[in-house]
Amino acid sequence: MNYSKRIEDVRKLILTKGLDSVLISSAHNKYYFGELFSSSGYIVITRSNQYILVDFRYFEEIKSKNKLFEVILLSSKNTIEKRLQSIIIEEGLNKIGFEGKEISYDVYQSLKESVCCNLYSLDVSKIRSVKEGKEIEYIKKACNIADATFQYILSYIEAGMSEKTVENELVRLMKEQGGEKESFDCIVASGIRGALPHGKASNKIINKGELITLDFGVKYNYYCSDITRTISLGRCSAELLNVYEVVKAAGEEAMRKAKPNITMGELDYSARDFIKKSGYGNFFGHNLGHGLGIQVHEYPSVAPDSDELLKEGMVITIEPGIYIPNVGGVRIEEDILITRDGCSSLTNSSRELIVI
Amino acid sequence: MNYSKRIEDVRKLILTKGLDSVLISSAHNKYYFGELFSSSGYIVITRSNQYILVDFRYFEEIKSKNKLFEVILLSSKNTIEKRLQSIIIEEGLNKIGFEGKEISYDVYQSLKESVCCNLYSLDVSKIRSVKEGKEIEYIKKACNIADATFQYILSYIEAGMSEKTVENELVRLMKEQGGEKESFDCIVASGIRGALPHGKASNKIINKGELITLDFGVKYNYYCSDITRTISLGRCSAELLNVYEVVKAAGEEAMRKAKPNITMGELDYSARDFIKKSGYGNFFGHNLGHGLGIQVHEYPSVAPDSDELLKEGMVITIEPGIYIPNVGGVRIEEDILITRDGCSSLTNSSRELIVI
Repeated sequence: MNYSKRIEDVRKLILTKGLDSVLISSAHNKYYFGELFSSSGYIVITRSNQYILVDFRYFEEIKSKNKLFEVILLSSKNTIEKRLQSIIIEEGLNKIGFEGKEISYDVYQSLKESVCCNLYSLDVSKIRSVKEGKEIEYIKKACNIADATFQYILSYIEAGMSEKTVENELVRLMKEQGGEKESFDCIVASGIRGALPHGKASNKIINKGELITLDFGVKYNYYCSDITRTISLGRCSAELLNVYEVVKAAGEEAMRKAKPNITMGELDYSARDFIKKSGYGNFFGHNLGHGLGIQVHEYPSVAPDSDELLKEGMVITIEPGIYIPNVGGVRIEEDILITRDGCSSLTNSSRELIVI
Repeated sequence: MNYSKRIEDVRKLILTKGLDSVLISSAHNKYYFGELFSSSGYIVITRSNQYILVDFRYFEEIKSKNKLFEVILLSSKNTIEKRLQSIIIEEGLNKIGFEGKEISYDVYQSLKESVCCNLYSLDVSKIRSVKEGKEIEYIKKACNIADATFQYILSYIEAGMSEKTVENELVRLMKEQGGEKESFDCIVASGIRGALPHGKASNKIINKGELITLDFGVKYNYYCSDITRTISLGRCSAELLNVYEVVKAAGEEAMRKAKPNITMGELDYSARDFIKKSGYGNFFGHNLGHGLGIQVHEYPSVAPDSDELLKEGMVITIEPGIYIPNVGGVRIEEDILITRDGCSSLTNSSRELIVI
């Protein structure tokens, strides 16, 4: 991975914002910028230097692998506040950015009281949105595991089984194939529970004639996949069959549109308008998609009215859905990579309705 | 569960702090006070009323089960800021507590800008530390699942297996027995990795002659267990055998001491001093234990110098450990319930060294 470039990107950002440094404290950003995946420890990037501050548990390992950083040992006497204050004095810092979206109010308050510097909320996560080759490779691998898991689960699901049982098998299968951990709690929503966009697997028994929405993903080398397929256990109603085709076509419409330099809003609209014209406009209540990487939900949001631009190298989800209260629902989700003049899908499971 | 008492406890707290209301936003506290386990939605408790504010996804369900609360529907037009402002005006509120430990700086900032009221950081989590009968029952069930899982895993572990493989089997076994989800990422630390107090399961292969520290737990009805046992794969060194006996005796010393009205510091000291006198004082770097409930780590911390008091009904962990860099480590952890005049253990696996 190109850590030098990442650090330079942070440096550009702090200059743009009129700051002279940033304190990075979230696990995902510490991993991205300094290979430190932990809730403890800090990264400080100033206009001319970069530091990792960790306690004895991480010190030796981080020191041996992070040659770009000065590694500073924290202890109960040598606290982050003290060491940060030293850096502030040595480098004459005045305006420090911090992760306001990630840091709690109480932590902010204690920081504010202990360092002589002005603090400004700053979001460095956006830098992660355009992926490098290695990152794409890991996401692809995570997608491959999800695809294979979907294939296996088709022969596992039976009428009379609970959603929870299906979830447990999904998790087991993903780990068996080398996944580290599920990216998020699996959604297994059958029958009328399919109308809940976030219907986490419950004790509900799956019955014949129901649609089942499976939304799951796995982490591989810290990178996530996130796939959704809706399948039918036996024959479902004609109405739901129609809903299925609308959702599928809406997602495909968005994938045809996706390319660099269109806005997130335009991309969202392409699927949303299709659903609206098909008569289901009131039943698609969430965004079309989101960025995917070290976090399963990260910048950008593929949301209505967003004028942020798609860029080559972004990895996002496309996940239209239709949810009809007390009837059921359908969602189909692909993970796509924005290419030079379009996109390519990283998930490869069939989008045709599978009846088991 | 006694929700009326819980709400009254919050009311007492806000009065003690000179406030007139509190906004609760964390999933664990919303679940404890209002049966709402979700990252979205809010609870507002004032001197005379209590409200749950949720969007359409939760509205009907919450309304039908939470008769103690006035349930308010949020939407993109009817935002939390607007509705909170209405409550502020209706009730003439002036000083609102908020969860400063849980809420991000950015969320605090947007709240501050949109409501005409003074905001004060407040921790309502302490109210959860003394458990009701039903809560103890759920924790006990979660402990039973962990105990049974430990028993099963003994016949599963073999030399040549990776720590990850053992972790996956631990998780599978816990879910198979009705656990919802692991309470935290399992620690499986073998050989010299045993010297890492938080050695999450890695790809390291487990070898004959190594100690293996297994630290795991599961959620049952939202309540956690958290158990640690260190076992030996074949015969380990005499030094580690000695370390094992010291850790075991230190934990048992603490369990003899644990009872209402002693301080957390005294309890911590009982085990820490025993380890020190045995010559390993430099190798026990963390607190003796922590509260356990809806969160796997919650108030109180069983920490040196803490003068907070143990109370009947608290559930805490007792987890002394000795970690010798480049040699290995031992930790033994029990979940205990503080009773009227002592404590009882909720975890029941043998504390004798098991050689497999």
